[in-house]
Amino acid sequence: MRKDRIPTQETITREPFPASTKVYVPGKIHDIKVAMREIALEDSVTHLPDGTKEYEKNNPVTVYDTSGPYSDPNIDIDVRKGLDRLREQWILDRGDVERLDNISSNYGKMREANPSLDELRFQHRHKPLRAKEGQNVSQLHYAKKGIITPEMEYIAIRENQRIDEMENIGHQHAGQNFGANTPQKKITPEFVRDEIASGRAIIPCNINHPESEPMIIGRNFLVKINANIGNSATTSSIEEEVEKAVWACRWGADNIMDLSTGKNIHETREWVIRNSPVPVGTVPIYQALEKVNGKAEDLTWEIFRDTLIEQAEQGVDYFTIHAGVLLKYIPLTARRVTGIVSRGGSIMAKWCLHHHKENFLYTNFEEICEIMKAYDVAFSLGDGLRPGSIADANDAAQFGELETLGELAKIAMKHEVQTMIEGPGHVPMHMIKANMDKQLEACNEAPFYTLGPLTTDIAPGYDHITSGIGAAMIGWFGTAMLCYVTPKEHLGLPNKEDVREGVVTYKLAAHAADLAKGHPGAQVRDNALSKARFEFRWRDQFNLSLDPEKALAFHDETLPAEGAKTAHFCSMCGPNFCSMKITQDVRDYAEANGLTEDEALAKGMEEKSKQFSDQGNEIYL
Amino acid sequence: MRKDRIPTQETITREPFPASTKVYVPGKIHDIKVAMREIALEDSVTHLPDGTKEYEKNNPVTVYDTSGPYSDPNIDIDVRKGLDRLREQWILDRGDVERLDNISSNYGKMREANPSLDELRFQHRHKPLRAKEGQNVSQLHYAKKGIITPEMEYIAIRENQRIDEMENIGHQHAGQNFGANTPQKKITPEFVRDEIASGRAIIPCNINHPESEPMIIGRNFLVKINANIGNSATTSSIEEEVEKAVWACRWGADNIMDLSTGKNIHETREWVIRNSPVPVGTVPIYQALEKVNGKAEDLTWEIFRDTLIEQAEQGVDYFTIHAGVLLKYIPLTARRVTGIVSRGGSIMAKWCLHHHKENFLYTNFEEICEIMKAYDVAFSLGDGLRPGSIADANDAAQFGELETLGELAKIAMKHEVQTMIEGPGHVPMHMIKANMDKQLEACNEAPFYTLGPLTTDIAPGYDHITSGIGAAMIGWFGTAMLCYVTPKEHLGLPNKEDVREGVVTYKLAAHAADLAKGHPGAQVRDNALSKARFEFRWRDQFNLSLDPEKALAFHDETLPAEGAKTAHFCSMCGPNFCSMKITQDVRDYAEANGLTEDEALAKGMEEKSKQFSDQGNEIYL
Repeated sequence: MRKDRIPTQETITREPFPASTKVYVPGKIHDIKVAMREIALEDSVTHLPDGTKEYEKNNPVTVYDTSGPYSDPNIDIDVRKGLDRLREQWILDRGDVERLDNISSNYGKMREANPSLDELRFQHRHKPLRAKEGQNVSQLHYAKKGIITPEMEYIAIRENQRIDEMENIGHQHAGQNFGANTPQKKITPEFVRDEIASGRAIIPCNINHPESEPMIIGRNFLVKINANIGNSATTSSIEEEVEKAVWACRWGADNIMDLSTGKNIHETREWVIRNSPVPVGTVPIYQALEKVNGKAEDLTWEIFRDTLIEQAEQGVDYFTIHAGVLLKYIPLTARRVTGIVSRGGSIMAKWCLHHHKENFLYTNFEEICEIMKAYDVAFSLGDGLRPGSIADANDAAQFGELETLGELAKIAMKHEVQTMIEGPGHVPMHMIKANMDKQLEACNEAPFYTLGPLTTDIAPGYDHITSGIGAAMIGWFGTAMLCYVTPKEHLGLPNKEDVREGVVTYKLAAHAADLAKGHPGAQVRDNALSKARFEFRWRDQFNLSLDPEKALAFHDETLPAEGAKTAHFCSMCGPNFCSMKITQDVRDYAEANGLTEDEALAKGMEEKSKQFSDQGNEIYL
Repeated sequence: MRKDRIPTQETITREPFPASTKVYVPGKIHDIKVAMREIALEDSVTHLPDGTKEYEKNNPVTVYDTSGPYSDPNIDIDVRKGLDRLREQWILDRGDVERLDNISSNYGKMREANPSLDELRFQHRHKPLRAKEGQNVSQLHYAKKGIITPEMEYIAIRENQRIDEMENIGHQHAGQNFGANTPQKKITPEFVRDEIASGRAIIPCNINHPESEPMIIGRNFLVKINANIGNSATTSSIEEEVEKAVWACRWGADNIMDLSTGKNIHETREWVIRNSPVPVGTVPIYQALEKVNGKAEDLTWEIFRDTLIEQAEQGVDYFTIHAGVLLKYIPLTARRVTGIVSRGGSIMAKWCLHHHKENFLYTNFEEICEIMKAYDVAFSLGDGLRPGSIADANDAAQFGELETLGELAKIAMKHEVQTMIEGPGHVPMHMIKANMDKQLEACNEAPFYTLGPLTTDIAPGYDHITSGIGAAMIGWFGTAMLCYVTPKEHLGLPNKEDVREGVVTYKLAAHAADLAKGHPGAQVRDNALSKARFEFRWRDQFNLSLDPEKALAFHDETLPAEGAKTAHFCSMCGPNFCSMKITQDVRDYAEANGLTEDEALAKGMEEKSKQFSDQGNEIYL
């Protein structure tokens, strides 16, 4: 087995995006600076009949940016020290946490005491924070008390993406929001607080992950996406996983999950979290299983509990917990085409069967809540019985578990622990909406977080697409976060290019959902890109796209010359045959004839048309 | 400019698909043999407690196959002679056609007389057929007379894919069909005839393209896809275009459109049609424009008419005709973000404006109908004013034109000419269904044929996916055929790999729609693949997928050893941590305890669960 490697400055992608500047918008309530990405545009050029040119300025477009400080060349980053601790002072200022002298978990202590790990270990660690005795440090707790935290104001500013300054770009279609509140004209800090307080949204922000930029998961906000990273028993190193995390954020991952099941999981996670500008989720049962050498029946509540504390003190922002896999549901999977396909679900099922006992995550759920609120770790209640094939979609096992997740969400709410609910899986299009409707009802509108769903089983190698279809649809229906799927799904481990392909696919699916929901300002970027496309501002078209590099590379495959990027044609139709150019002629014609008003234009043409017909041409009606 | 090249045997892809056999199912009414692809599966293996193995046979899966004779190693193909003329005798037997001594079009005669084209010309040409004076040779005409043609019986057999023999694979979810007839349990020849007679479906099958295998476009049948090929002013050769056509069919194109706008269009088309096992569509105005050196204003009805006859006698199966771009609609596009983006639409708009006259395709529509019915060319009424951006979706120009297309469809129906209607374009998800609803109403349920639609503008480089989302949805809502989009859309000309990526993406979108509609037998392949996946029959999983080569290659990237293809684990979780394996344990456990009935199982578990809880564990309810 290859020796593990730690990251260096050289293994991290740090280029800024083309024509983009990192901007920081100040808060009004709190002393905060909200990071965004501003894309500068070229002027529109009109060629006048007298041979001169007229220039019209195009406002820059500001976009929600998940790339963190990595895309800001003005910020020094030392991967060995981790990112700046943006939220640390906000957390300390609340006065409800204490810094521990040492980490609390037995496993963490053991790893710390092992000198053979010295060269792999992240060196500049901070002592963990924990809520003072009897305190709850969750954003839900503050929201219920009516407090607008800096995290909430940050989110309000971030979600708006400076739409006020961009509204000159064009109109937006009214969306169609399913079962949610009326979409806001503009997101306010108070609206964020209210959505958190109601349980309709969560902010995953462990007090031990102050490096992350606050983000919100809820269906009245921009749809978010998750990218999974993590090593496995046979492949990859710490170095690769940290770069994969940075890389995923670069292309648009709003948060990542570290699903490592290989060696040095504890150390890998520390490196990832310290360098992650987005929240990090995990499935603690994976690591717990490694601690018992992969034998599910050897798992105990004590080992699991120690794992939760270990990870909470490292800064994991949310835990997937498969507490809904109850004994009574397990037999319902025996006749499925694909049984139990969730790893967490199958581990718990195996444990339950072996011991003839109820799921220990379920029986100890209130104690788990106590741990979560001491660090503000959010629940992601796992769907261990999600369908793994079209045939198994929406069956009794799946919906039975969903009901139980709803009960658990209520208990978490009682404890003021932030909670979201995981969803499928493989579901044909006509059965997707029922998932959303049932989830909203069963789980009291807690945010839904789905994997796809994949809308057919027959396209391995293209499952980012089969699932992108389902993801866009369920995002429109109200799912708050979409877990990405890469082209390697069902076949192998994704490499860096697969991660990019998966992230961009999910980013476009999430954006399609934002458009369909009519999220305020969502269409600004589409309008700006389409205007650039129509005006042959090729560079702007590339720069406004989700993947500027690929758009440029694809264009250059056919027309690599620099001149082609200002040419008023493209490779598809050639210089004499361009529909965009012809449309410009239509406009010029209309203007030259003084037909500037839509109605006058239409009227003039209709008369012309009628006149022509009256002269003896056939009319068909 | 590079010299044009003609195809050779070596430039055409001819490998059969893995584990696949070409089978031919005989007709009952007519003496026909319907080509299909049968995928053989391995046995399921159960490892018994005593160390022995139990084998269970898996029936082969038969799939709708568009690859034509190319994937049958038993058939000799000479690209210089073209494919076997499958339908020729059927056509002649109807007794309503005559063989012309010479081609009728002036342009065709001119090309024939040009010796410099000898080396490019397809040599083994046949003299064209045409309806006898006063005859209508369209399938619609026969259907209305109550005749079940061999084409109709072929289609009935083909659409069923031998579901009778495959039904043991598992249940199918009931679909949700929008505004259509109740889906048929099984497609009968009479049902095909009735759908054709009502205008709800078409069979594109020019009497001069007898090489094509009959296929149907209608919303009560499998959703079809189209792939565009064709050269441009600057790139590609006849050789490449013919291989692109064969290649597109290999991956699932149900028909192709030759959109050539470069040199030697006439000769390229002849080569493509003679070697195409699927219907071929064109946009005749493209070639007409080349004949007037790209100057739209120089187009005339006479040049266009000659082009229609030229192409009809070569065997083009349907023509896109932009007859709905009326003078009165043109000004409605002047204030759009992206004006007119359809090439055909912009050409006609330019002509109309220049001459201050109504669209000559509209004013000569009845004469066009006369030409169409003499060769059984179908109309694809083009949406010249389709939206080219989210901002322009569903606007007055688009829907105005759709109303006119509806009027024209009625005229075509009066002439008994088969007709489908083209649709957008760029449309956000929440505005897609309105397109389908309006089309069904305005066009009297004529089949809808849409490009995408793209559900966002911001992902150039990924527009096969942005549009695949819209395509799957509108296919579910009732669109009969989806025009593919490749990753190069908006950026450049697709290469072979782009064609494959686009075709497979659209194939999966069409299949997702078939599942959602509950098309009979559609789910058989999903169930078979998922069962193979669950049982670690890796080879079967690859072979049942839409792209077996890619699935295999992706798997082998991580685990290339041959042994891994029979291993009961994969690279994602490694040997000790497989959810599929754990599920098998669940089943084994259930069986070992005599819990073979679902209800008994559930009851047993529930009691166990209750008993456990009664012993003092917490219950959360």
